[in-house]
Amino acid sequence: MIMKGRGRFITLEGGEGVGKSTQIRALAAALRERGLTVVETREPGGSRGAEAIRELLLHSEGDAWSPRAEALLFAAARSDHVSRVITPALEAGQWVLCDRFIDSTRAYQGGGSGLSDEDIMTLHRIGSEALLPDRTLLLRLDVDVAEARRSARTLERADRFEDRQAAFHTKVVAAFDRIAEAEPQRIRRIDADGQPDEVTGRLLAALADLL
Amino acid sequence: MIMKGRGRFITLEGGEGVGKSTQIRALAAALRERGLTVVETREPGGSRGAEAIRELLLHSEGDAWSPRAEALLFAAARSDHVSRVITPALEAGQWVLCDRFIDSTRAYQGGGSGLSDEDIMTLHRIGSEALLPDRTLLLRLDVDVAEARRSARTLERADRFEDRQAAFHTKVVAAFDRIAEAEPQRIRRIDADGQPDEVTGRLLAALADLL
Repeated sequence: MIMKGRGRFITLEGGEGVGKSTQIRALAAALRERGLTVVETREPGGSRGAEAIRELLLHSEGDAWSPRAEALLFAAARSDHVSRVITPALEAGQWVLCDRFIDSTRAYQGGGSGLSDEDIMTLHRIGSEALLPDRTLLLRLDVDVAEARRSARTLERADRFEDRQAAFHTKVVAAFDRIAEAEPQRIRRIDADGQPDEVTGRLLAALADLL
Repeated sequence: MIMKGRGRFITLEGGEGVGKSTQIRALAAALRERGLTVVETREPGGSRGAEAIRELLLHSEGDAWSPRAEALLFAAARSDHVSRVITPALEAGQWVLCDRFIDSTRAYQGGGSGLSDEDIMTLHRIGSEALLPDRTLLLRLDVDVAEARRSARTLERADRFEDRQAAFHTKVVAAFDRIAEAEPQRIRRIDADGQPDEVTGRLLAALADLL
Protein backbone atom coordinates (compact mmCIF):
# COMPACT_ATOMS: atom_id res chain seq x y z
CA MET A 1 0.00 0.00 0.00
CA ILE A 2 1.29 3.45 -0.92
CA MET A 3 0.86 6.05 1.80
CA LYS A 4 -0.67 9.16 0.39
CA GLY A 5 1.27 12.18 1.60
CA ARG A 6 -0.03 15.61 2.41
CA GLY A 7 -0.92 17.66 -0.67
CA ARG A 8 0.79 20.90 -1.67
CA PHE A 9 -0.57 24.34 -0.99
CA ILE A 10 0.21 26.81 -3.79
CA THR A 11 -0.92 30.43 -3.89
CA LEU A 12 -0.92 32.92 -6.76
CA GLU A 13 -0.40 36.54 -5.85
CA GLY A 14 0.03 39.88 -7.58
CA GLY A 15 -1.66 43.20 -8.27
CA GLU A 16 -4.74 43.52 -10.46
CA GLY A 17 -4.45 42.90 -14.19
CA VAL A 18 -1.51 40.48 -14.03
CA GLY A 19 -3.58 37.52 -15.28
CA LYS A 20 -3.95 35.46 -12.11
CA SER A 21 -7.40 34.07 -12.99
CA THR A 22 -6.27 32.85 -16.41
CA GLN A 23 -3.08 31.40 -15.04
CA ILE A 24 -4.66 29.55 -12.15
CA ARG A 25 -6.95 27.68 -14.55
CA ALA A 26 -4.06 26.84 -16.88
CA LEU A 27 -1.84 25.74 -14.01
CA ALA A 28 -4.58 23.53 -12.55
CA ALA A 29 -5.08 21.87 -15.94
CA ALA A 30 -1.33 21.26 -16.31
CA LEU A 31 -1.11 19.72 -12.83
CA ARG A 32 -4.14 17.50 -13.49
CA GLU A 33 -2.41 16.23 -16.66
CA ARG A 34 0.35 15.06 -14.33
CA GLY A 35 -2.18 12.95 -12.43
CA LEU A 36 -2.67 15.24 -9.44
CA THR A 37 -6.01 16.01 -7.83
CA VAL A 38 -6.25 19.79 -7.76
CA VAL A 39 -8.64 22.05 -5.86
CA GLU A 40 -8.93 25.59 -7.30
CA THR A 41 -10.08 28.19 -4.85
CA ARG A 42 -9.83 31.92 -4.17
CA GLU A 43 -9.81 34.60 -1.52
CA PRO A 44 -11.60 36.42 -0.14
CA GLY A 45 -14.11 33.56 -0.21
CA GLY A 46 -13.66 29.91 -1.06
CA SER A 47 -16.09 28.49 1.54
CA ARG A 48 -19.72 29.29 2.20
CA GLY A 49 -19.03 31.36 5.31
CA ALA A 50 -16.08 33.12 3.68
CA GLU A 51 -18.12 33.97 0.58
CA ALA A 52 -20.72 35.63 2.82
CA ILE A 53 -17.93 37.72 4.36
CA ARG A 54 -16.56 38.46 0.86
CA GLU A 55 -19.90 40.05 -0.03
CA LEU A 56 -19.63 42.31 3.01
CA LEU A 57 -16.05 43.23 2.10
CA LEU A 58 -16.38 43.99 -1.59
CA HIS A 59 -19.76 45.62 -1.71
CA SER A 60 -20.28 47.37 1.60
CA GLU A 61 -23.00 49.97 1.37
CA GLY A 62 -22.44 53.35 2.89
CA ASP A 63 -19.21 53.95 4.75
CA ALA A 64 -16.27 51.82 3.75
CA TRP A 65 -14.73 49.54 6.39
CA SER A 66 -11.77 50.94 8.27
CA PRO A 67 -8.45 49.19 7.53
CA ARG A 68 -8.64 47.50 10.95
CA ALA A 69 -12.17 46.16 10.52
CA GLU A 70 -11.26 45.08 6.98
CA ALA A 71 -8.21 43.13 8.19
CA LEU A 72 -10.31 41.36 10.84
CA LEU A 73 -12.96 40.44 8.26
CA PHE A 74 -10.29 39.05 5.91
CA ALA A 75 -8.84 37.02 8.79
CA ALA A 76 -12.31 35.66 9.69
CA ALA A 77 -13.01 34.67 6.08
CA ARG A 78 -9.57 33.05 5.80
CA SER A 79 -10.09 31.12 9.04
CA ASP A 80 -13.30 29.59 7.68
CA HIS A 81 -11.74 28.88 4.28
CA VAL A 82 -8.65 27.23 5.78
CA SER A 83 -10.53 25.03 8.26
CA ARG A 84 -13.30 23.93 5.91
CA VAL A 85 -11.62 23.73 2.50
CA ILE A 86 -7.83 24.09 2.40
CA THR A 87 -6.69 21.93 5.32
CA PRO A 88 -9.12 19.05 4.64
CA ALA A 89 -8.00 18.96 0.96
CA LEU A 90 -4.29 18.98 1.88
CA GLU A 91 -4.84 16.22 4.42
CA ALA A 92 -6.57 14.18 1.71
CA GLY A 93 -3.41 14.46 -0.42
CA GLN A 94 -4.83 17.01 -2.87
CA TRP A 95 -3.08 20.05 -4.27
CA VAL A 96 -4.73 23.36 -3.47
CA LEU A 97 -4.28 26.33 -5.82
CA CYS A 98 -5.52 29.51 -4.23
CA ASP A 99 -6.01 32.86 -5.99
CA ARG A 100 -4.72 35.28 -3.32
CA PHE A 101 -4.00 34.41 0.33
CA ILE A 102 -2.21 35.98 3.31
CA ASP A 103 0.31 37.89 1.17
CA SER A 104 -2.51 39.84 -0.49
CA THR A 105 -3.72 40.94 2.92
CA ARG A 106 -0.17 41.96 3.81
CA ALA A 107 0.29 43.91 0.56
CA TYR A 108 -3.15 45.53 0.36
CA GLN A 109 -4.13 46.10 3.99
CA GLY A 110 -0.58 46.43 5.31
CA GLY A 111 1.46 48.03 2.55
CA GLY A 112 -1.49 49.91 1.12
CA SER A 113 -3.41 51.11 4.14
CA GLY A 114 -1.17 51.24 7.16
CA LEU A 115 -1.83 48.19 9.38
CA SER A 116 1.44 46.67 10.61
CA ASP A 117 2.68 43.42 9.09
CA GLU A 118 3.15 42.05 12.60
CA ASP A 119 -0.52 42.64 13.45
CA ILE A 120 -1.65 41.03 10.20
CA MET A 121 0.47 37.95 10.92
CA THR A 122 -0.90 37.86 14.48
CA LEU A 123 -4.44 37.75 13.07
CA HIS A 124 -3.32 34.94 10.77
CA ARG A 125 -1.95 32.98 13.73
CA ILE A 126 -5.14 33.40 15.76
CA GLY A 127 -7.46 32.62 12.84
CA SER A 128 -5.56 30.04 10.81
CA GLU A 129 -2.66 28.72 12.91
CA ALA A 130 -0.33 30.80 10.72
CA LEU A 131 -0.72 28.41 7.78
CA LEU A 132 1.70 29.36 4.97
CA PRO A 133 1.74 28.06 1.38
CA ASP A 134 4.37 25.54 0.30
CA ARG A 135 5.00 27.87 -2.62
CA THR A 136 3.73 31.31 -3.58
CA LEU A 137 3.90 32.44 -7.19
CA LEU A 138 4.02 36.22 -7.41
CA LEU A 139 3.01 37.41 -10.87
CA ARG A 140 4.88 40.59 -11.77
CA LEU A 141 4.10 43.12 -14.48
CA ASP A 142 5.11 46.73 -14.90
CA VAL A 143 2.42 48.91 -13.34
CA ASP A 144 1.82 50.64 -16.72
CA VAL A 145 1.19 47.34 -18.52
CA ALA A 146 -1.13 46.15 -15.76
CA GLU A 147 -3.01 49.45 -15.92
CA ALA A 148 -3.50 49.09 -19.68
CA ARG A 149 -4.80 45.53 -19.23
CA ARG A 150 -7.27 46.69 -16.61
CA SER A 151 -8.56 49.51 -18.83
CA ALA A 152 -8.96 47.12 -21.77
CA ARG A 153 -11.26 44.85 -19.78
CA THR A 154 -14.95 45.64 -19.81
CA LEU A 155 -15.76 45.86 -16.15
CA GLU A 156 -19.37 44.89 -15.65
CA ARG A 157 -19.22 46.23 -12.16
CA ALA A 158 -16.60 48.24 -10.38
CA ASP A 159 -15.76 46.85 -6.99
CA ARG A 160 -13.94 48.75 -4.29
CA PHE A 161 -10.56 47.19 -4.93
CA GLU A 162 -10.61 47.68 -8.71
CA ASP A 163 -11.52 51.30 -8.13
CA ARG A 164 -8.37 52.31 -6.41
CA GLN A 165 -5.87 54.49 -8.10
CA ALA A 166 -2.59 53.74 -9.84
CA ALA A 167 -0.59 55.25 -6.97
CA PHE A 168 -2.13 52.71 -4.65
CA HIS A 169 -1.26 49.89 -7.07
CA THR A 170 2.34 51.02 -7.21
CA LYS A 171 2.46 50.87 -3.43
CA VAL A 172 0.92 47.38 -3.42
CA VAL A 173 3.41 46.09 -6.00
CA ALA A 174 6.27 47.45 -3.88
CA ALA A 175 4.80 45.74 -0.81
CA PHE A 176 4.60 42.41 -2.66
CA ASP A 177 8.26 42.81 -3.66
CA ARG A 178 9.33 43.43 -0.08
CA ILE A 179 7.43 40.35 1.12
CA ALA A 180 9.01 38.24 -1.64
CA GLU A 181 12.52 39.44 -0.83
CA ALA A 182 12.11 38.36 2.78
CA GLU A 183 11.07 34.80 1.86
CA PRO A 184 12.87 33.80 -1.36
CA GLN A 185 12.41 30.05 -0.73
CA ARG A 186 8.61 30.24 -0.45
CA ILE A 187 7.85 33.12 -2.81
CA ARG A 188 8.97 33.10 -6.46
CA ARG A 189 8.60 36.16 -8.64
CA ILE A 190 7.28 35.29 -12.09
CA ASP A 191 7.36 37.59 -15.12
CA ALA A 192 3.71 37.81 -16.24
CA ASP A 193 4.51 39.46 -19.59
CA GLY A 194 4.21 37.41 -22.80
CA GLN A 195 1.85 34.74 -24.15
CA PRO A 196 -0.29 32.97 -21.54
CA ASP A 197 1.26 29.54 -22.23
CA GLU A 198 4.75 30.99 -21.80
CA VAL A 199 3.73 32.34 -18.40
CA THR A 200 2.19 28.98 -17.42
CA GLY A 201 5.50 27.35 -18.34
CA ARG A 202 7.31 29.70 -15.97
CA LEU A 203 4.87 28.86 -13.17
CA LEU A 204 5.38 25.12 -13.66
CA ALA A 205 9.15 25.59 -13.67
CA ALA A 206 8.86 27.38 -10.32
CA LEU A 207 7.07 24.31 -8.90
CA ALA A 208 9.50 21.73 -10.34
CA ASP A 209 11.08 20.87 -7.00
CA LEU A 210 7.65 20.10 -5.50
CA LEU A 211 6.48 17.82 -8.33
CA MET B 1 -17.19 78.95 28.56
CA ILE B 2 -17.43 75.52 30.15
CA MET B 3 -15.23 72.87 28.56
CA LYS B 4 -17.18 69.73 27.91
CA GLY B 5 -15.22 66.68 29.10
CA ARG B 6 -15.11 63.25 27.59
CA GLY B 7 -18.27 61.21 28.22
CA ARG B 8 -18.36 57.97 30.20
CA PHE B 9 -18.43 54.54 28.67
CA ILE B 10 -20.59 52.08 30.66
CA THR B 11 -21.22 48.47 29.68
CA LEU B 12 -23.79 45.99 31.00
CA GLU B 13 -22.76 42.37 31.04
CA GLY B 14 -24.14 39.04 32.19
CA GLY B 15 -25.55 35.74 31.00
CA GLU B 16 -28.92 35.45 29.25
CA GLY B 17 -32.09 36.09 31.24
CA VAL B 18 -30.57 38.49 33.77
CA GLY B 19 -32.61 41.46 32.54
CA LYS B 20 -29.95 43.53 30.76
CA SER B 21 -32.31 44.94 28.11
CA THR B 22 -34.83 46.18 30.68
CA GLN B 23 -32.11 47.60 32.90
CA ILE B 24 -30.25 49.44 30.17
CA ARG B 25 -33.42 51.35 29.25
CA ALA B 26 -34.16 52.17 32.89
CA LEU B 27 -30.57 53.24 33.54
CA ALA B 28 -30.52 55.46 30.44
CA ALA B 29 -33.74 57.14 31.57
CA ALA B 30 -32.33 57.73 35.07
CA LEU B 31 -29.14 59.26 33.67
CA ARG B 32 -31.10 61.51 31.29
CA GLU B 33 -33.11 62.78 34.27
CA ARG B 34 -29.77 63.91 35.67
CA GLY B 35 -29.24 66.02 32.52
CA LEU B 36 -26.82 63.73 30.72
CA THR B 37 -26.92 62.95 27.02
CA VAL B 38 -27.02 59.16 26.76
CA VAL B 39 -26.44 56.90 23.76
CA GLU B 40 -27.89 53.38 24.16
CA THR B 41 -26.27 50.76 22.00
CA ARG B 42 -25.58 47.02 21.91
CA GLU B 43 -23.24 44.34 20.69
CA PRO B 44 -22.85 42.53 18.46
CA GLY B 45 -24.06 45.38 16.28
CA GLY B 46 -24.58 49.04 17.08
CA SER B 47 -23.36 50.47 13.75
CA ARG B 48 -24.46 49.69 10.21
CA GLY B 49 -21.41 47.58 9.38
CA ALA B 50 -21.51 45.80 12.73
CA GLU B 51 -25.21 45.00 12.36
CA ALA B 52 -24.44 43.34 9.01
CA ILE B 53 -21.79 41.22 10.76
CA ARG B 54 -24.27 40.49 13.58
CA GLU B 55 -26.61 38.95 11.04
CA LEU B 56 -23.81 36.66 9.86
CA LEU B 57 -22.98 35.71 13.45
CA LEU B 58 -26.42 35.01 14.85
CA HIS B 59 -28.09 33.38 11.90
CA SER B 60 -25.42 31.63 9.90
CA GLU B 61 -26.87 29.04 7.58
CA GLY B 62 -25.27 25.65 7.36
CA ASP B 63 -22.14 25.01 9.37
CA ALA B 64 -21.68 27.11 12.46
CA TRP B 65 -18.63 29.37 12.61
CA SER B 66 -15.59 27.95 14.37
CA PRO B 67 -14.70 29.67 17.67
CA ARG B 68 -11.74 31.33 15.93
CA ALA B 69 -13.75 32.70 13.00
CA GLU B 70 -16.45 33.79 15.43
CA ALA B 71 -13.97 35.72 17.60
CA LEU B 72 -12.57 37.49 14.51
CA LEU B 73 -16.07 38.45 13.37
CA PHE B 74 -16.91 39.82 16.81
CA ALA B 75 -13.68 41.84 16.79
CA ALA B 76 -14.47 43.22 13.31
CA ALA B 77 -17.98 44.23 14.36
CA ARG B 78 -16.65 45.83 17.53
CA SER B 79 -13.98 47.74 15.59
CA ASP B 80 -16.65 49.29 13.37
CA HIS B 81 -18.95 50.03 16.33
CA VAL B 82 -16.17 51.65 18.37
CA SER B 83 -14.81 53.84 15.58
CA ARG B 84 -18.17 54.99 14.21
CA VAL B 85 -20.43 55.20 17.27
CA ILE B 86 -18.77 54.82 20.67
CA THR B 87 -15.63 56.94 20.33
CA PRO B 88 -17.34 59.85 18.52
CA ALA B 89 -20.07 59.95 21.19
CA LEU B 90 -17.55 59.90 24.06
CA GLU B 91 -15.53 62.65 22.40
CA ALA B 92 -18.72 64.72 22.11
CA GLY B 93 -19.15 64.44 25.90
CA GLN B 94 -21.99 61.92 25.77
CA TRP B 95 -22.46 58.87 27.98
CA VAL B 96 -22.53 55.57 26.13
CA LEU B 97 -24.45 52.61 27.61
CA CYS B 98 -23.63 49.41 25.77
CA ASP B 99 -25.44 46.08 26.13
CA ARG B 100 -22.50 43.63 26.02
CA PHE B 101 -18.92 44.48 24.99
CA ILE B 102 -15.47 42.88 25.19
CA ASP B 103 -16.22 40.98 28.43
CA SER B 104 -19.01 39.05 26.68
CA THR B 105 -16.55 37.92 24.03
CA ARG B 106 -14.12 36.88 26.77
CA ALA B 107 -16.83 34.95 28.67
CA TYR B 108 -18.60 33.35 25.69
CA GLN B 109 -15.82 32.75 23.16
CA GLY B 110 -13.03 32.39 25.68
CA GLY B 111 -14.54 30.79 28.78
CA GLY B 112 -17.17 28.92 26.82
CA SER B 113 -15.38 27.73 23.70
CA GLY B 114 -11.67 27.58 24.31
CA LEU B 115 -10.00 30.62 22.70
CA SER B 116 -7.39 32.11 25.05
CA ASP B 117 -8.15 35.36 26.85
CA GLU B 118 -4.81 36.71 25.65
CA ASP B 119 -5.75 36.14 22.00
CA ILE B 120 -9.15 37.78 22.52
CA MET B 121 -7.50 40.84 24.07
CA THR B 122 -4.97 40.92 21.21
CA LEU B 123 -7.86 41.06 18.73
CA HIS B 124 -9.36 43.88 20.78
CA ARG B 125 -6.08 45.80 20.65
CA ILE B 126 -5.76 45.40 16.88
CA GLY B 127 -9.41 46.20 16.18
CA SER B 128 -10.31 48.80 18.80
CA GLU B 129 -7.10 50.08 20.39
CA ALA B 130 -7.99 47.99 23.47
CA LEU B 131 -10.76 50.41 24.50
CA LEU B 132 -12.14 49.47 27.93
CA PRO B 133 -15.29 50.80 29.62
CA ASP B 134 -15.01 53.30 32.47
CA ARG B 135 -17.34 50.99 34.39
CA THR B 136 -18.80 47.56 33.67
CA LEU B 137 -21.96 46.46 35.48
CA LEU B 138 -22.12 42.68 35.66
CA LEU B 139 -25.67 41.51 36.36
CA ARG B 140 -25.64 38.33 38.43
CA LEU B 141 -28.44 35.83 38.96
CA ASP B 142 -28.41 32.20 40.01
CA VAL B 143 -28.25 30.04 36.90
CA ASP B 144 -31.57 28.35 37.87
CA VAL B 145 -33.40 31.66 38.18
CA ALA B 146 -32.00 32.85 34.86
CA GLU B 147 -33.05 29.58 33.23
CA ALA B 148 -36.61 29.98 34.52
CA ARG B 149 -36.76 33.55 33.18
CA ARG B 150 -35.58 32.38 29.78
CA SER B 151 -38.19 29.59 29.65
CA ALA B 152 -40.96 32.01 30.65
CA ARG B 153 -40.21 34.26 27.70
CA THR B 154 -41.97 33.49 24.43
CA LEU B 155 -39.09 33.16 22.01
CA GLU B 156 -40.30 34.06 18.57
CA ARG B 157 -37.09 32.74 17.11
CA ALA B 158 -34.31 30.76 18.64
CA ASP B 159 -30.90 32.12 17.81
CA ARG B 160 -27.67 30.20 18.19
CA PHE B 161 -26.68 31.77 21.49
CA GLU B 162 -30.07 31.30 23.16
CA ASP B 163 -30.00 27.67 22.10
CA ARG B 164 -27.01 26.63 24.09
CA GLN B 165 -27.39 24.44 27.09
CA ALA B 166 -27.46 25.22 30.81
CA ALA B 167 -24.01 23.66 31.29
CA PHE B 168 -22.61 26.20 28.86
CA HIS B 169 -24.35 29.04 30.72
CA THR B 170 -22.85 27.88 34.00
CA LYS B 171 -19.41 28.00 32.39
CA VAL B 172 -20.08 31.50 31.02
CA VAL B 173 -21.23 32.80 34.42
CA ALA B 174 -18.06 31.40 35.99
CA ALA B 175 -15.97 33.11 33.29
CA PHE B 176 -17.69 36.45 33.98
CA ASP B 177 -16.91 36.02 37.69
CA ARG B 178 -13.22 35.38 36.99
CA ILE B 179 -13.01 38.45 34.76
CA ALA B 180 -14.72 40.57 37.45
CA GLU B 181 -12.39 39.35 40.18
CA ALA B 182 -9.37 40.41 38.16
CA GLU B 183 -10.64 43.99 37.67
CA PRO B 184 -12.65 45.01 40.75
CA GLN B 185 -12.27 48.74 40.06
CA ARG B 186 -13.77 48.59 36.57
CA ILE B 187 -16.24 45.72 36.98
CA ARG B 188 -18.97 45.78 39.65
CA ARG B 189 -21.10 42.73 40.32
CA ILE B 190 -24.76 43.64 40.72
CA ASP B 191 -27.45 41.34 42.18
CA ALA B 192 -30.12 41.16 39.46
CA ASP B 193 -32.75 39.53 41.67
CA GLY B 194 -35.70 41.60 42.89
CA GLN B 195 -37.96 44.30 41.44
CA PRO B 196 -36.61 46.06 38.34
CA ASP B 197 -36.48 49.49 40.05
CA GLU B 198 -34.50 48.02 42.94
CA VAL B 199 -31.97 46.65 40.48
CA THR B 200 -31.76 50.00 38.68
CA GLY B 201 -31.05 51.62 42.04
CA ARG B 202 -28.12 49.25 42.54
CA LEU B 203 -26.76 50.08 39.09
CA LEU B 204 -26.93 53.83 39.79
CA ALA B 205 -25.19 53.33 43.12
CA ALA B 206 -22.38 51.53 41.32
CA LEU B 207 -21.93 54.61 39.10
CA ALA B 208 -22.06 57.16 41.91
CA ASP B 209 -18.35 58.00 41.79
CA LEU B 210 -18.61 58.78 38.05
CA LEU B 211 -21.62 61.06 38.30
